[in-house]
Amino acid sequence: MLAKMSVDVSLRALRTLRLLVLVSLCVFISVSAASSPAQEEDSAMENIVTEKKAEESHRQDSADLLIFILLLTLTILTIWLFKHRRFRFLHETGLAMIYGLIVGVILRYVVQVPQDTKPVPTSCLLNASTPTLLVNISGKFYEYTLKREISSNEVNDVKDNEMLRKVTFDPEVFFNILLPPIIFHAGYSLKRRHFFRNMGSILAYAFVGTVISCFIIGLLMYGCVTLMKHLGQLGGDFFFTDCLFFGAIVSATDPVTVLAIFHELHVDVDLYALLFGESVLNDAVAVVLSSSIVAYQPQGDNSHTFEAMALLKSLGMFLGVFSGSFSLGVATGIVTALVTKFTKLRDFQLLETALFFLMSWSTFLLAEACGFTGVVAVLFCGITQAHYTFNNLSPESQDRTKQLFELLNFLAENFIFSYMGLTLFTFQNHIFNPMFIVGAFLAVFVGRAANIYPLSLLLNLGRFNKIRSNFQHMMMFAGLRGAMTFALSIRDTATYARQMMFSTNLLVVFFTVWVCGGGTTQMLSCLRIRVGVDSDQENSVSFADGSERRSTKQESAWLFRIWYNFDHNYLKPILTHSGPPLTTTLPPCCGPLARFLTSPQAYENECQLKDDDSDLILTDGDISLTYGDITVSTDATGARTSDGLATDDLDRELAYGDHELVMRGTRLVLPMDDSEPPFTDHLRM
Amino acid sequence: MLAKMSVDVSLRALRTLRLLVLVSLCVFISVSAASSPAQEEDSAMENIVTEKKAEESHRQDSADLLIFILLLTLTILTIWLFKHRRFRFLHETGLAMIYGLIVGVILRYVVQVPQDTKPVPTSCLLNASTPTLLVNISGKFYEYTLKREISSNEVNDVKDNEMLRKVTFDPEVFFNILLPPIIFHAGYSLKRRHFFRNMGSILAYAFVGTVISCFIIGLLMYGCVTLMKHLGQLGGDFFFTDCLFFGAIVSATDPVTVLAIFHELHVDVDLYALLFGESVLNDAVAVVLSSSIVAYQPQGDNSHTFEAMALLKSLGMFLGVFSGSFSLGVATGIVTALVTKFTKLRDFQLLETALFFLMSWSTFLLAEACGFTGVVAVLFCGITQAHYTFNNLSPESQDRTKQLFELLNFLAENFIFSYMGLTLFTFQNHIFNPMFIVGAFLAVFVGRAANIYPLSLLLNLGRFNKIRSNFQHMMMFAGLRGAMTFALSIRDTATYARQMMFSTNLLVVFFTVWVCGGGTTQMLSCLRIRVGVDSDQENSVSFADGSERRSTKQESAWLFRIWYNFDHNYLKPILTHSGPPLTTTLPPCCGPLARFLTSPQAYENECQLKDDDSDLILTDGDISLTYGDITVSTDATGARTSDGLATDDLDRELAYGDHELVMRGTRLVLPMDDSEPPFTDHLRM
Repeated sequence: MLAKMSVDVSLRALRTLRLLVLVSLCVFISVSAASSPAQEEDSAMENIVTEKKAEESHRQDSADLLIFILLLTLTILTIWLFKHRRFRFLHETGLAMIYGLIVGVILRYVVQVPQDTKPVPTSCLLNASTPTLLVNISGKFYEYTLKREISSNEVNDVKDNEMLRKVTFDPEVFFNILLPPIIFHAGYSLKRRHFFRNMGSILAYAFVGTVISCFIIGLLMYGCVTLMKHLGQLGGDFFFTDCLFFGAIVSATDPVTVLAIFHELHVDVDLYALLFGESVLNDAVAVVLSSSIVAYQPQGDNSHTFEAMALLKSLGMFLGVFSGSFSLGVATGIVTALVTKFTKLRDFQLLETALFFLMSWSTFLLAEACGFTGVVAVLFCGITQAHYTFNNLSPESQDRTKQLFELLNFLAENFIFSYMGLTLFTFQNHIFNPMFIVGAFLAVFVGRAANIYPLSLLLNLGRFNKIRSNFQHMMMFAGLRGAMTFALSIRDTATYARQMMFSTNLLVVFFTVWVCGGGTTQMLSCLRIRVGVDSDQENSVSFADGSERRSTKQESAWLFRIWYNFDHNYLKPILTHSGPPLTTTLPPCCGPLARFLTSPQAYENECQLKDDDSDLILTDGDISLTYGDITVSTDATGARTSDGLATDDLDRELAYGDHELVMRGTRLVLPMDDSEPPFTDHLRM
Repeated sequence: MLAKMSVDVSLRALRTLRLLVLVSLCVFISVSAASSPAQEEDSAMENIVTEKKAEESHRQDSADLLIFILLLTLTILTIWLFKHRRFRFLHETGLAMIYGLIVGVILRYVVQVPQDTKPVPTSCLLNASTPTLLVNISGKFYEYTLKREISSNEVNDVKDNEMLRKVTFDPEVFFNILLPPIIFHAGYSLKRRHFFRNMGSILAYAFVGTVISCFIIGLLMYGCVTLMKHLGQLGGDFFFTDCLFFGAIVSATDPVTVLAIFHELHVDVDLYALLFGESVLNDAVAVVLSSSIVAYQPQGDNSHTFEAMALLKSLGMFLGVFSGSFSLGVATGIVTALVTKFTKLRDFQLLETALFFLMSWSTFLLAEACGFTGVVAVLFCGITQAHYTFNNLSPESQDRTKQLFELLNFLAENFIFSYMGLTLFTFQNHIFNPMFIVGAFLAVFVGRAANIYPLSLLLNLGRFNKIRSNFQHMMMFAGLRGAMTFALSIRDTATYARQMMFSTNLLVVFFTVWVCGGGTTQMLSCLRIRVGVDSDQENSVSFADGSERRSTKQESAWLFRIWYNFDHNYLKPILTHSGPPLTTTLPPCCGPLARFLTSPQAYENECQLKDDDSDLILTDGDISLTYGDITVSTDATGARTSDGLATDDLDRELAYGDHELVMRGTRLVLPMDDSEPPFTDHLRM
């Protein structure tokens, strides 16, 4: 026994040693990679040819990117160790930030930079700046592209430290490359059934709540800023619109850390759906809100007064951009669904996956090209793809697309968080004002509270399945800030106000991710929130004991009911192979259109025609995937109602899924797939 | 019967109609997307604020990228139709080129461009160009980054057509973003067993053959250019180094079209391996060769004379860069293998896949940062990953990584080919010289012949399994040019010579992809090359009839034998969980090191210890994956030898795989997985 233990211990020690060797190897490679271009620069100094310099610049870029790649690698290895040891206090994003911080400190205080590569400010005779500049330098022409405008006080800093400036990415990278996959993945992985069941509450939190939060924070910060001005603590302009902008960008919650723990511990699915749905949608609201606030530009000299017209214009812009992005996203999702429905692309999984990826990407580009917000479009595209297109894909492509976006999301998220850590030390225009920071933390807290508690109170009036107070506290606690807040803050750091916001936001993100994220498990047990809830198991329990089924019609009943009927009768049959044939649901005048749009499967199912080469898909499985297993939650406190017999059609559908629906004879889809047990059981009965 | 047929026909017509609707919808979206920014520009004209212009530029970029995304979408849909109808004359890459051509024509002749966005050449007082430029424009500072040098005759063109210039990507995009996944995928999907079996021949074709081809083409083109100069057909300088450069870049073959058909028709695996291996490796050779030729810079005034020192320097550079890139690629592959071996990362597939992806990407960045060639490093990294790391991955990650790189390869490849089509009309400095073009086609033909036929003759002296003349003709025919040639030509189009090369190369690619690619099936039947060869089936046939096994030791025997022994005894045990424990293969003096490096599995296997929580992997499966099913080819002509009894150890290993090996008792690995039928069968026997 003792011998076995010592073997175990020594084996474990051996493995840990190996890991350390590997990790230090990685660090060594990273350091040597980071230092090698610096050595190379000495030899390059002699040669002042442009090509050499461009090559040098390319090498430098590669080395910079390499630092991040190796940071991510380190994060992965460490997070594996944490997961392996079931250590839940630090999520991978929090860890990525820590590593980023460390590398930031090294870059700032350890690495020495040669001073020869400073850019030289030149005085060109130009009336206005152009996106492209052709410069005639001693007879040769060079093409330069505009990167950004630099504030005059920044010019000296720029010249100060080339190295730090080099590891600073173009802020648009976050918006155009890193955020889209994250947001798309969020939309694509929304737990649909719970999302739709709690749709009313989620929309309330996301829209009303975010606007409340934005204005509360904006007003509080305006008070704080006014006080600072009186005390002489303010070193530059800070207008009310700036305060509102701050409110908007800091209202985007990103509880990725909390959700990961929820997922792992199987916390109540409704709480999960509420938090996730809110965080996904409020990102979209915050983006559009902040751009509308920036667009608020009253005419005349004093550009920071109140003006009704400008306000209306901003409001119109908010509505226009939001609805435009929404429509675009949904439209491309629908096009993809139609393409995958009416072609047999599913026979070629690579083509199918590629098409899915390209169509989803094109949503972003289309929205950006039309002047809408790509990130918002991508979100709604993701939701549409998950709700319709996903059902048309072959099982292999379903896996492929899920895994692809999961990977992209993972990489992009950790990249952003490690960059966040890095930028705390490498960003050269930080303005840390203690009073502003304290004010911001307070305002963020109050803003979150003003979002959650009053809205929950109102929502509970209408909800049957109340949002209990411990759930409310948890939602309050889970108001972490993350990638979206960061990306919105770093986008524009030209003015004093923006720089102070950026620095403060960084601290808000660090604090919430580390403290709130790290304390999630403690908070869960402190609030006595049930863990280990298996949604399927819960479902079967309620089936076994029929009287326990709880009516779900009261909660968000009208919204959900309208949506469900429309979706089931029209959208599903049009966009997927499932649902009743349109010929039975559409009015007779639309006959030809209905026949054109209805899937051949629906006809075949209806006419009981079996064709040899019919590309029969799992019509039955498709339905059950989406609605067949809608769970009926039981209250953790034990409160139960027994209105099992008073249920209406909709409720019965929710409880039994579409199998039941088919049996009642009102719908004509008869699934052909005999291998599906629940249906054949029904037939035999 | 007639009724059924008419239903069939009408159904088919309906489907085709739907497809047309969908495709035209896509086209409509693409056109409207492309035209919308143009409309927007009118309103933007009034506002000369930089931010607006930058936003405009971003929108334009989105629209440009959108064009390509939609092109790829169209390509996918069309290629699906082709595959669906088993139409093999046009591969997706050929189709992508056609669509690119069409869009190029539209952009060039149909779309009107507003003329206000021309870049203005400015005369700045600078001594030398810098990578970053700070420009002081009426009090505000703007940061510009160097894009490229423009030749003086190009300056006017640049001003001519902003629209066409806009859809022109930075040529470095191809090298730094699009080529790496293609090349990595090629390495990662090398059919390893056949690749290693034909290693000698492949290396000969790739190294010797490419150098021969480069010099033959270079010499022929020098003759052609000299003739043109005499006839007064030459409008600029064209030196011998330019000719050699042309020879190098046009020597990179890319028979992706042919290989796709080979794969589909199951053409002889050896021919496949020869062609694929050659094309993969000669890309690497061509890249390094061309950069070495560019680096040939004799000192003194006349920079295009022969100088021994400069030649030696170039040669040294070739060897240095190639071996450096090779080592780096292999090194990161080995690091990844070690990390995946010594951690239990396989429990978390997402982390595992992410790590794999990041490590592979870091190879590229590391090589570029060190001044080596990233593309070459990535190729050898891919081969190493496939040979070692792949065996350490969990089955799910094996699928994920394969599918991920398959998708990236597909997208990048089709993007490049559609860009190729586009650029024929949108590139503004084409120089089409009929004489040069005819000369180039001839030279490419002769160069390919001088590569294949003499080398095959020499190789056949040493090979037992001769490369028959019809295989040689097929290899000659399959010398398509593709992505690599294009990427190398577009990288630098500053001089007259380079522009003429670029235009000519485009035509070479078009011709070979369409004509040679499209005629592959005809050529196969014309040359009477057997199709429908199933490597596994072939294998079992030779097993059933033991006397038919053909010795493979003669072909590349010494090279393969050395490699195989080293790999099996040392590399596999160090880098994967399979193979004999190092304690038995390494000399006793290396005892501690051997114990440290040997996988716990190997110990456990050796000691017959079964642990409850041992992370037992499919040791057996791993081996069989790599060596267990090495096929023994039968000659298509029916020529057979029966030296089955005279086979030596190595040959027996090849025939039976490692299962046999284990049974002979000389090795100590006893696979633990009882579910593997071949091994258990052996035991029962």
